[in-house]
Amino acid sequence: MSFCDLAVSGVADLQPYVPGKPIEELQRQYGVHDVIKLASNENPLGPSKAALAAVAKSSKEMTRYPDGNGYTLKMALAEKLRLSPQQITLGNGSNDVLELLARTFAGHGDEVIYSEHAFAVYPLAVKAIGATGIATPAKDYGHDLKAMLKAISPRTKLIFIANPNNPTGTWIESAEVQAFLDKVPEKVLVVLDEAYVEYLEQTESSVNWLQSFDNLIITRTFSKAYGLAGLRVGYALSHPEIADLLNRIRQPFNVNSLAQAAAVAALGDESYLQQSREVNQTGMLQLTGEFDKMGLKYIPSKGNFITVNVHTNAAEVYDELLYEGVIVRPIAGYGLPQHLRVSIGLEQENQRFLEALSRVLGRG
Amino acid sequence: MSFCDLAVSGVADLQPYVPGKPIEELQRQYGVHDVIKLASNENPLGPSKAALAAVAKSSKEMTRYPDGNGYTLKMALAEKLRLSPQQITLGNGSNDVLELLARTFAGHGDEVIYSEHAFAVYPLAVKAIGATGIATPAKDYGHDLKAMLKAISPRTKLIFIANPNNPTGTWIESAEVQAFLDKVPEKVLVVLDEAYVEYLEQTESSVNWLQSFDNLIITRTFSKAYGLAGLRVGYALSHPEIADLLNRIRQPFNVNSLAQAAAVAALGDESYLQQSREVNQTGMLQLTGEFDKMGLKYIPSKGNFITVNVHTNAAEVYDELLYEGVIVRPIAGYGLPQHLRVSIGLEQENQRFLEALSRVLGRG
Repeated sequence: MSFCDLAVSGVADLQPYVPGKPIEELQRQYGVHDVIKLASNENPLGPSKAALAAVAKSSKEMTRYPDGNGYTLKMALAEKLRLSPQQITLGNGSNDVLELLARTFAGHGDEVIYSEHAFAVYPLAVKAIGATGIATPAKDYGHDLKAMLKAISPRTKLIFIANPNNPTGTWIESAEVQAFLDKVPEKVLVVLDEAYVEYLEQTESSVNWLQSFDNLIITRTFSKAYGLAGLRVGYALSHPEIADLLNRIRQPFNVNSLAQAAAVAALGDESYLQQSREVNQTGMLQLTGEFDKMGLKYIPSKGNFITVNVHTNAAEVYDELLYEGVIVRPIAGYGLPQHLRVSIGLEQENQRFLEALSRVLGRG
Repeated sequence: MSFCDLAVSGVADLQPYVPGKPIEELQRQYGVHDVIKLASNENPLGPSKAALAAVAKSSKEMTRYPDGNGYTLKMALAEKLRLSPQQITLGNGSNDVLELLARTFAGHGDEVIYSEHAFAVYPLAVKAIGATGIATPAKDYGHDLKAMLKAISPRTKLIFIANPNNPTGTWIESAEVQAFLDKVPEKVLVVLDEAYVEYLEQTESSVNWLQSFDNLIITRTFSKAYGLAGLRVGYALSHPEIADLLNRIRQPFNVNSLAQAAAVAALGDESYLQQSREVNQTGMLQLTGEFDKMGLKYIPSKGNFITVNVHTNAAEVYDELLYEGVIVRPIAGYGLPQHLRVSIGLEQENQRFLEALSRVLGRG
């Protein structure tokens, strides 16, 4: 007997998410030392001191269960975003809230729409629940909202939109998103995944749209600009009734206590956030400037990463870069076999990557 | 339009798990200070120093994503339990692995068996996926394995058994569990939830049974005797093929990096574990001795808690204890409206609870 035969439909042929290679794994497997990792869109600054202090303080109480209601963190978010705490659902990273949304609102026979080249967790979450994923073709590597509108059927339950998109960094202007929301039937929920939103110079906050669109859900994370990827804190902002449903299906202690404490501290550390943006802008110019000189095309990005076309089998370039001690991200799994996604690092990390890339491509 | 109408069956009428009241919440809501919490079966010792040191070290890297494969923790567990790392699935608390099991192997139309008075997460996990829960009547507050065997139908996919059971503390002898496993059809998976197993004076480890029963899954946690409830680390031990399925549906970064580091350290801190057992044994005698004097019946417990019959509406006693600054756990939701579940605390905490209980019952 095979246990795969006992699994519910969808799970047995699920291919797990492939994360960026951890530094320790490269050291272990390749014997390479002095490794730099630009593979997971992590914040290169290292942790905020305020977040570190919060972790140290909270760890003294780590024999206690976390606050399952996330009272302090929700209050801090609600104050900052001028929303009610009842509109917030906390997640073990935004991955958790994305999955909760799929599990709450879709099942076998339902359809969920997302774009080609969009975040890999959408199709995974959809497949795991036996629903049908509808991937609309990309337009200039980004979301084609008109195509997404056309793909809506009576079976459509959810639409996932990443803005900025990962792994391409593309960005949809606010006016275009609002025009799209105007046209989506109210029974279809739109999930706007804003994992990278803090890197934007924003003129208008999407949070205001929640007042006009009850079927809008915004997801965000502390993993990127706030620098807490290791701690897993994300959240959804929505109509209170949607938040209530998500909170029913959510694991009661999904966000751990150190993570909650660190997130509250990070939220208050404006100078860290500002520094994250500055390092990102400088690094982005450093990388794109050099790509221009090297004659490499890239997709203009609003995130903390840049996706570059290496005009050859990117998996091979990725592998050669590993031997140089540089981890980046191959994205053939996203339908982009000649592109590499590179996270923006510190100046010297970017430099080392550029030199290694130059050597590897020169050899080819 | 109600968003409840859009939710999949099961979610809309889900009642969330009610956790023990956090100390801060009592302080906030009741204005009570100097609070002791004996409500969530937490380790009263405070964190292991080794685990604290591991958290401090790991926090320096908390801008990085966790190791999604949990390499170091799985290797440490595999070595300790003499299993292959391929038999291990890590979870965000054992709650996570229990839910993964339900989602992987059961769906609409399937049946899942558990006992009356057993852990509340089983019916919640089952309802959330639209499966049918079959609760067999308890026998002396514990599991009636014969009744559970009889409840197996062609639709049965999973059986959850908590041993020791929470919230009653009852224990099923090894021989009885093995005889049960012998009779369960191989297509029905048996989940043996051993959250409290480290408190036992064990003669035989259930881990050995994995060699004989491919359909057996053992779940364990770092939240109790290891003292890491705030960090959320649990795991499942199983046939590698089952672990492979669970790892496909698992969120890639479900266990955060500080939690993984702390768990590795806790696993190596034998003296903390030994002290946890000793404090528990002493405190158990302290509480049961006093209950005997007070003429209160209790359910003999193998866990780090004791469930006592207050012979009146336990919810009222619970509430009066809150005003005394003592948080315990009412368990009417488990079908035991005259019982309170009390976690074993430090000597002075137990004493304070006993005095408060005496006052409250004396008043009644």
